[in-house]
Amino acid sequence: MSDVPGGQPTDSALDPAPERIREMGAAAVEWAAAYQEGIRDLPVAPRTSAAELKAQLAEPLPAEGRDFEALMERFRDVVVPGSRHSGHPRFFGYVSAPGVAVASVADFLASALNANLPAWRSAPAPTELEHVAVDWIRQALGCDEGAGGLFTSGGSMANFTALAAARHRHCGDEVAAHGAAAHPKPLRIYTSAEAHHSIHKAAALLGIGRANVREIPVDERFRMRVDALSRAIEEDRAAGLDPFCVVASAGTVVTGAVDPLASIAAVAQEHDLWLHVDACYGGFARLAPSARPLFDGLSEADSIALDPHKWLYLPADVGCLIYRNPEQVKGAFALGADYTRVLHSEPAEAFAFWDYGPDLSRRFKALKVWMTIAHVGADAMGEAIESNLDRARHAAALIDDSDDFELMAPVELSIFCFRHVPASMRGRALSDDEERELDKLNERIMLTLQQAGSSYLSNASIHGRFALRGCVLNYRTTRHDMEILLDDVRGAAATVPPP
Amino acid sequence: MSDVPGGQPTDSALDPAPERIREMGAAAVEWAAAYQEGIRDLPVAPRTSAAELKAQLAEPLPAEGRDFEALMERFRDVVVPGSRHSGHPRFFGYVSAPGVAVASVADFLASALNANLPAWRSAPAPTELEHVAVDWIRQALGCDEGAGGLFTSGGSMANFTALAAARHRHCGDEVAAHGAAAHPKPLRIYTSAEAHHSIHKAAALLGIGRANVREIPVDERFRMRVDALSRAIEEDRAAGLDPFCVVASAGTVVTGAVDPLASIAAVAQEHDLWLHVDACYGGFARLAPSARPLFDGLSEADSIALDPHKWLYLPADVGCLIYRNPEQVKGAFALGADYTRVLHSEPAEAFAFWDYGPDLSRRFKALKVWMTIAHVGADAMGEAIESNLDRARHAAALIDDSDDFELMAPVELSIFCFRHVPASMRGRALSDDEERELDKLNERIMLTLQQAGSSYLSNASIHGRFALRGCVLNYRTTRHDMEILLDDVRGAAATVPPP
Repeated sequence: MSDVPGGQPTDSALDPAPERIREMGAAAVEWAAAYQEGIRDLPVAPRTSAAELKAQLAEPLPAEGRDFEALMERFRDVVVPGSRHSGHPRFFGYVSAPGVAVASVADFLASALNANLPAWRSAPAPTELEHVAVDWIRQALGCDEGAGGLFTSGGSMANFTALAAARHRHCGDEVAAHGAAAHPKPLRIYTSAEAHHSIHKAAALLGIGRANVREIPVDERFRMRVDALSRAIEEDRAAGLDPFCVVASAGTVVTGAVDPLASIAAVAQEHDLWLHVDACYGGFARLAPSARPLFDGLSEADSIALDPHKWLYLPADVGCLIYRNPEQVKGAFALGADYTRVLHSEPAEAFAFWDYGPDLSRRFKALKVWMTIAHVGADAMGEAIESNLDRARHAAALIDDSDDFELMAPVELSIFCFRHVPASMRGRALSDDEERELDKLNERIMLTLQQAGSSYLSNASIHGRFALRGCVLNYRTTRHDMEILLDDVRGAAATVPPP
Repeated sequence: MSDVPGGQPTDSALDPAPERIREMGAAAVEWAAAYQEGIRDLPVAPRTSAAELKAQLAEPLPAEGRDFEALMERFRDVVVPGSRHSGHPRFFGYVSAPGVAVASVADFLASALNANLPAWRSAPAPTELEHVAVDWIRQALGCDEGAGGLFTSGGSMANFTALAAARHRHCGDEVAAHGAAAHPKPLRIYTSAEAHHSIHKAAALLGIGRANVREIPVDERFRMRVDALSRAIEEDRAAGLDPFCVVASAGTVVTGAVDPLASIAAVAQEHDLWLHVDACYGGFARLAPSARPLFDGLSEADSIALDPHKWLYLPADVGCLIYRNPEQVKGAFALGADYTRVLHSEPAEAFAFWDYGPDLSRRFKALKVWMTIAHVGADAMGEAIESNLDRARHAAALIDDSDDFELMAPVELSIFCFRHVPASMRGRALSDDEERELDKLNERIMLTLQQAGSSYLSNASIHGRFALRGCVLNYRTTRHDMEILLDDVRGAAATVPPP
């Protein structure tokens, strides 16, 4: 590093010498290698309190800097033990990926290069790489050529962005220019009663209103009832409301149900509605042969939301939105400012991501998606997803074969919902009071399990009842882990007094 | 790494052995150290085309994985040379940070740990660390204790989120539940004619409408005119419109103007409007002694949007939103789902970021903010920012002293806007035709400069005229770099035929 006249010191915390970068990098890599090696032996979740952590972490804005080593120590000694370990093979809570190692390396490279991707002109090769990575996802989903999109902060924003695009196609620029009140009738969105609440949140933020998300009842497998969908649209039209969008779920967050996509696409087409598919959890399962038929009809969607930070095993955050016809949506997000005026004449070089979503500055998230898919390959990715499906089915079989557990929903993908039933309550109908006692019992079992640290489940509500809910989304999880999980639940149940 | 019965292979692309993680990490770190060492000698921006890059990068979804080394090679040989180098000391385009090295390391650690921060329960220590890092920013801005917030994908989303919160305070839950049309009068937002267009985009997305963003004229220093603001609010009220929010700019994107915050705060208070300050570019300049007085009144804002990926020098993406009263905004973003039901009774442990913004899954962005501030220290950060201000003032002085350049706006922070004036056009009033010729000339100069690769400026429109615009946001930039820049512009001008 040459000495530049009038420059900053050539080895400072802001602009360290190459040796310092190597030292910091080596310490971080060493930690990561050891962390991933030992992850199976860590407690899945920490036993700690906000008060304890604040005592270790809170301090006033420091005037002076301190050594990287001191910060690394704080990270290792306080932050890591105070974290839930998403990569642990028996972390089954929510929908949570382990974070594949090559993607961490890609995230480091992305930050060191610090490409910013508002538009092609600001990051030519990174923009092209985002096109490549998005196109690989398009192919994985079986969508037609010409579909395309972009990476987002996550699934909630991908759903929000899709609804914004759908509204714009339906209402034209009138709403963007003059507000939702400029549209003559209340807009209506249709989604199943099991849909993710980010749909309702998006409707609230967009000025459409949560109450204008009409929830369609589901069948016995928690899939949207297509007959009920058609009826709801017709009813609403007759009542002077304005249906414009159907949101199908390809993997609901509670049970993993995949709505009948082809039939819903037919209804959407018949009524000229935008079809958005929330495939954040389930979409990539199309790579697993045994799940592929569930996704028939997916390619007919106008937009598809995905979370590569779920079933592509990537670290947060990276969501994805694919449009069937990207050119159609540009008006919804256009910026009119001179500093975003693009001087290129070649269309691919005039391309700007800000025409397709809400952000202007955008991280080079594509690098981790590209590197992970290219390093792993679609076949091995599909095998890993298939193995996750197998683990969930194995758990379901063990639960079905047991005396003390009861499966509460069909296993459609890699989510399994069940509860513990104590001996006194087995093999007979339960009163409402007994059901409520069973809810409380299983909630206590879950909290005890989470505290014990060997396995982690979260909760769900199935037909109003408390369910222990697990989601397998980790290539490290074995069949044996499923057996350990059930033993851990039994162990927790044994320490919780039955009702 | 022990062999687990029934598990995946213990050294695969998805789950590599520790030695492989060390190898991948070492290769990446070595690249980053060399990249940062040599960054001054790179062309600032690539000379390439979309066609050329597509030929090197596009390929079908790969069924088989390939070695990390092959991917690293593609990154080094295609992606890096095809990128603009934001960390180059003479990259003056847009508002773009270099990406400090320690933050790349933090981004690696964040991805390897893969904490996900929707709520405390999912990431206890990372959540507490986000509170610490946000609180450091609160202190840097001089805001009162009790103010707090969260990190966002960037400034556009921070502005969007603030406007959503402002609307919710004003309209209550009626709009969230039933849509914008449920509010009896058109909502109105006030911001200066120089405000960032993400405000207009947010208004469009929220269903408020771009046309309901009323642009207030600016003074000779491009600051919002407070008298005009008061008049506009009164006029709108008299016309039956419903003013609810003022957006002040603390560092406009075109010239770096900081609106008179204290006076605007008084008007907002008088009219009971939410005051949001878009401090995405300028906010952190409060750490530089010479700029501090510009930020008087900032602490009276109801919300402040910032971009740590601008003047904290962090790699994208990390925006930040600070609320004066966080508890007030929760209803705007609430999720009603059972899977987000929080079972903790301790308030700090029941805390959920989804109550304060649009996202559910959230990356551990706080780690890079915390590590960078703690490693550098607020004093050295302030000195670096001060040095950026100095460089812009130095450029302005050189421009003022020159025959061939003309400063087009006052230098308020680190942005400088100017143009080249050929000998034939100096020292006299120009006709409209001549002004347009000068616009075209300077546009050609900018494109020539960008192609040449030694320095990079972007463009702005000042009183309708084309300006060369530079923004100094890099601790590597020296006074000498400013001299090289002006020589580079002269060199570009010499190759472009005068009108």
